[in-house]
Amino acid sequence: MMLDIVTSIIEFSSKGNTDIIDVTEKVADKVEESGFSEGNVTVFGVGSTTGISTIEYEPGLVKHDIAEFWQKIAPYGVNYSHNQTWGDDNGASHIRSTTQGSSLTVPFKNGEMILGTWQQIIFVDFDTRPRSRRVVVQVIGKK
Amino acid sequence: MMLDIVTSIIEFSSKGNTDIIDVTEKVADKVEESGFSEGNVTVFGVGSTTGISTIEYEPGLVKHDIAEFWQKIAPYGVNYSHNQTWGDDNGASHIRSTTQGSSLTVPFKNGEMILGTWQQIIFVDFDTRPRSRRVVVQVIGKK
Amino acid sequence: MMLDIVTSIIEFSSKGNTDIIDVTEKVADKVEESGFSEGNVTVFGVGSTTGISTIEYEPGLVKHDIAEFWQKIAPYGVNYSHNQTWGDDNGASHIRSTTQGSSLTVPFKNGEMILGTWQQIIFVDFDTRPRSRRVVVQVIGKK
Repeated sequence: MMLDIVTSIIEFSSKGNTDIIDVTEKVADKVEESGFSEGNVTVFGVGSTTGISTIEYEPGLVKHDIAEFWQKIAPYGVNYSHNQTWGDDNGASHIRSTTQGSSLTVPFKNGEMILGTWQQIIFVDFDTRPRSRRVVVQVIGKK
Repeated sequence: MMLDIVTSIIEFSSKGNTDIIDVTEKVADKVEESGFSEGNVTVFGVGSTTGISTIEYEPGLVKHDIAEFWQKIAPYGVNYSHNQTWGDDNGASHIRSTTQGSSLTVPFKNGEMILGTWQQIIFVDFDTRPRSRRVVVQVIGKK
Repeated sequence: MMLDIVTSIIEFSSKGNTDIIDVTEKVADKVEESGFSEGNVTVFGVGSTTGISTIEYEPGLVKHDIAEFWQKIAPYGVNYSHNQTWGDDNGASHIRSTTQGSSLTVPFKNGEMILGTWQQIIFVDFDTRPRSRRVVVQVIGKK
């Protein structure tokens, strides 16, 4: 009945430009592999142009609405001060990442995350180019 | 002095339309019931149109300012791609939920959450209709 | 190999007006002092006009872009309902804090937080005046 902790990294490619990737199954696999029945899992996006959150993973939101929302309030293609510092073009990526956040903690019981029926865990790549990405999946719990 | 974990669900009705509900006392009750003196409590909103955060719970913010802010940047009543997928009308609810996030972790010591004097824990229902809601309250700590 | 928990408060002055303070080193010190090799650290901003997140801590973003972003979507200097309740002038501070969130959990392994190369942990003071601030740094882990 002692608590323990298991830390893993999942890796994948993303297309950038507010590419939204469903990582729910990969996170669920780590919860299952831990063998814990009760606890929580922290999902953490490595990098300052990443976002972690939940969403109903359907194409309207994932391919259109979220991108249009961010383009309205923190548009790509604008000459941010960040861009002048580095000769980068991804000031908007950083603003979006800092605002949304890169960390999420989901409780589980009986070995299953307590999510809504249409609530998936997502990684968002706000950067302006394709990248190889790492996400930390850390499970704390007891058998 | 061993850490342990206690997972509960709190349930209540909400009115939707960015209804903001103060859950501080319910969360504090779960911390107290755990009997732990030091640890943290994760508050997780079940469902993809929910939000969890903190606020100074006073009517100006809770009844007006937050709703007007979101209506400006992610308005209800717009024909989002999400709405076309499902015949729903709640694309804005999903955008707001994904942006704000549905998970919060609050540390406690001496059995009391370390919150500011005017800092309350809130559940936000971004959906466009009244709903019955579930929030996970999970306490990790030691006696 | 038993998990344990260590809770600390860090204190500092901030200038308000979306002042962004890099707390990465202070958080790393608490992880190191804990003596734990594997676990996570929760960083929690005390107060309802605070924000916690990650960013690439460079002057363009920190001194200009983030402030301009928030000024566009939740401007200071507007007569919010909150201001009418209290005679305050910081309605925007509360909206920004609730939207961004005041809590972050960062996993660590081999005694080191798993952050991106240019990903720093920040405290943001959204209030409209200089303040003395407290941030909770809570480490859970095992040796």
